[in-house]
Amino acid sequence: MKKITRRSFNTTLSVGIGAMLNSTKACAETLQDGKKLGMALVGLGSYSEYQLAPSLQDTQHTYLAGIVTGTPEKAAKWTEKYGLDKKNIYNYENFDDIADNDDIDIVYVVLPNSMHADFCIRAAKAGKHVICEKPMAVSVVECDAIIKACNQAGVKLSVGYRLHSEPYTQELMKIVKEKKFGEVNFVSADAAYISRGNPNQWRLDRKLSGGGALMNMGVYSIQSAIYGSGQNPTSVSAQEFSTRPEYFKDTDETISAQFEFPNGAVGNIYTSHNANINRHYSSFEKGWVELEPANNYGPLSGRTSGGVTLSYPHERQQKLQMDDFAHHIMYGSVNKVPGEMGKRDMIIVEAIYESIREGGEKISLDLGNMGIVTG
Amino acid sequence: MKKITRRSFNTTLSVGIGAMLNSTKACAETLQDGKKLGMALVGLGSYSEYQLAPSLQDTQHTYLAGIVTGTPEKAAKWTEKYGLDKKNIYNYENFDDIADNDDIDIVYVVLPNSMHADFCIRAAKAGKHVICEKPMAVSVVECDAIIKACNQAGVKLSVGYRLHSEPYTQELMKIVKEKKFGEVNFVSADAAYISRGNPNQWRLDRKLSGGGALMNMGVYSIQSAIYGSGQNPTSVSAQEFSTRPEYFKDTDETISAQFEFPNGAVGNIYTSHNANINRHYSSFEKGWVELEPANNYGPLSGRTSGGVTLSYPHERQQKLQMDDFAHHIMYGSVNKVPGEMGKRDMIIVEAIYESIREGGEKISLDLGNMGIVTG
Repeated sequence: MKKITRRSFNTTLSVGIGAMLNSTKACAETLQDGKKLGMALVGLGSYSEYQLAPSLQDTQHTYLAGIVTGTPEKAAKWTEKYGLDKKNIYNYENFDDIADNDDIDIVYVVLPNSMHADFCIRAAKAGKHVICEKPMAVSVVECDAIIKACNQAGVKLSVGYRLHSEPYTQELMKIVKEKKFGEVNFVSADAAYISRGNPNQWRLDRKLSGGGALMNMGVYSIQSAIYGSGQNPTSVSAQEFSTRPEYFKDTDETISAQFEFPNGAVGNIYTSHNANINRHYSSFEKGWVELEPANNYGPLSGRTSGGVTLSYPHERQQKLQMDDFAHHIMYGSVNKVPGEMGKRDMIIVEAIYESIREGGEKISLDLGNMGIVTG
Repeated sequence: MKKITRRSFNTTLSVGIGAMLNSTKACAETLQDGKKLGMALVGLGSYSEYQLAPSLQDTQHTYLAGIVTGTPEKAAKWTEKYGLDKKNIYNYENFDDIADNDDIDIVYVVLPNSMHADFCIRAAKAGKHVICEKPMAVSVVECDAIIKACNQAGVKLSVGYRLHSEPYTQELMKIVKEKKFGEVNFVSADAAYISRGNPNQWRLDRKLSGGGALMNMGVYSIQSAIYGSGQNPTSVSAQEFSTRPEYFKDTDETISAQFEFPNGAVGNIYTSHNANINRHYSSFEKGWVELEPANNYGPLSGRTSGGVTLSYPHERQQKLQMDDFAHHIMYGSVNKVPGEMGKRDMIIVEAIYESIREGGEKISLDLGNMGIVTG
């Protein structure tokens, strides 16, 4: 059994916690005048266009203040549509000038995975708070570099795991934490969709994506297994499956993985670009919780043992997520998705790929409580 | 990747099919006078007492005619309760005399797993049709011996997989077969219960059970993965997990396994004596089917994509199962659970244990359509 020790990954952790406790310039300003924090989206793909920008029309603590795009036509369209100030429009060449723009408090990096680290680090160096879309990066080394840059700059860092602000998911986490049904024994998390589109999309190019289904939907399954058990895994084994290698040329099509948790619970995850599945299940000593769908843009749906159907009003998850982060910056509330959480998941991703390379060998993990947020 | 070839296991298959096509003495007799076939239960544990005997009060084509028990008190109690003819009461010493008893047409072996082969073979040699409770035996070699004995005696053989006669399960099989939602991409089957009872029970003694969770609930998961995909797996990998080794001294507590199917679908199964879970999920190109519970004594519950809740009147599954087998004997209808199905599952069980011994290595299987029943 191979071992990945915490020691090799936690060099920046203590620095990170220290920085998170610092108050920042933006925080002091906002507390004084109650203004919304200005957000700049970096990368205007479909997620920015159809999820983040519309959500930013409803947010209470942040608003769409600027954009960063390499496409002048998009810049013009967005400027008009959202009435943006022209001085808040950047391209990838002049992005670093954002340091001088007081309208921008937060930079949300929504680029292909391999570009996350570069732009998150540049945003931090520009003195801006950072949201890094998931997966945080394409390696643990890159995650460390992002965390270090944010710590050194004294800015806040979050990862785009919107579900931590989502009520069905929060109810699941509450049931786990309060042991409503006793100890958790088993978690199952399947996240997959059938990909048959443009074979040249960046998600199918390992240089840009860092991996396939695992890097895209798989991180949801990893997240789900962890918040559905309330623990970090102590080991992982994994298998890869392939049916369309001509389409999935250099990214994983389907992966399953098994986790062991400190209390003895077992986790089974499955992720694929070759099936449509979206569900979570936690089994406890005295009951269970099911979410299905479990991680799409919602509304989610869920039920528990005892014949309970969960029901919450629907709001855009991204609105809740961005407001939570802005609130954290302004008022010091808990950062629900700190950078360490994204880094931890990348440690697990790398262990899964390692297990696959080693023929399914069990890989030991020593994560402690890295990335587990309480309170 | 290790290989298990079909050739090493199919020596008795062609003989088996030939024998199944033969008409038998019982068949001819029953067709003439329309009588019910007489059933003898071998082993009067809780499954016989609370499931099979009550079911035999409702069956149309078979009835409780006799018992085989080593406990005189049970013999007396059952004789009185069910008004049994005293000549139809056997113990394990005089069991073979059943050959001379025309009241008994079918022998149902409900003993601990390690005794299945011995009593099934003796029942066949006595000229009786045989139902062997699941799992069929504790090894493929024993399954072969049972099949051979039944073929040689010209008697019918079935395994106690009651769900093949159960309407929710039959609807799932129909959806798979008719490709109602297109090709299947993924199946998930979890079957588990928390065992904390008598540490001396036979299920926890490998000499009697042949294994733990996998031999008990795991064969349901294997079954479920196969009828939920309509295919036999072409490979399997597996992992074992343990939290209470002092209780599960020499049987497996928790096992997960991954299957590959000929059409590229992936299967994930989980079985445990340390969690309460009972569910099945099949994901297709254009929809899904979920059963939950999926394999308890019912009533089962199920739903499909498109907002459909499955609903069928409840009857005892064992009643349906035993009637189906009696009907097969009398009228030549399809044997829904032939011995080859039980043998195939034992091949998979052995491959799962082998994968675990080999650290999760993928084991190749060449099962063809062994045990797949159509029509």
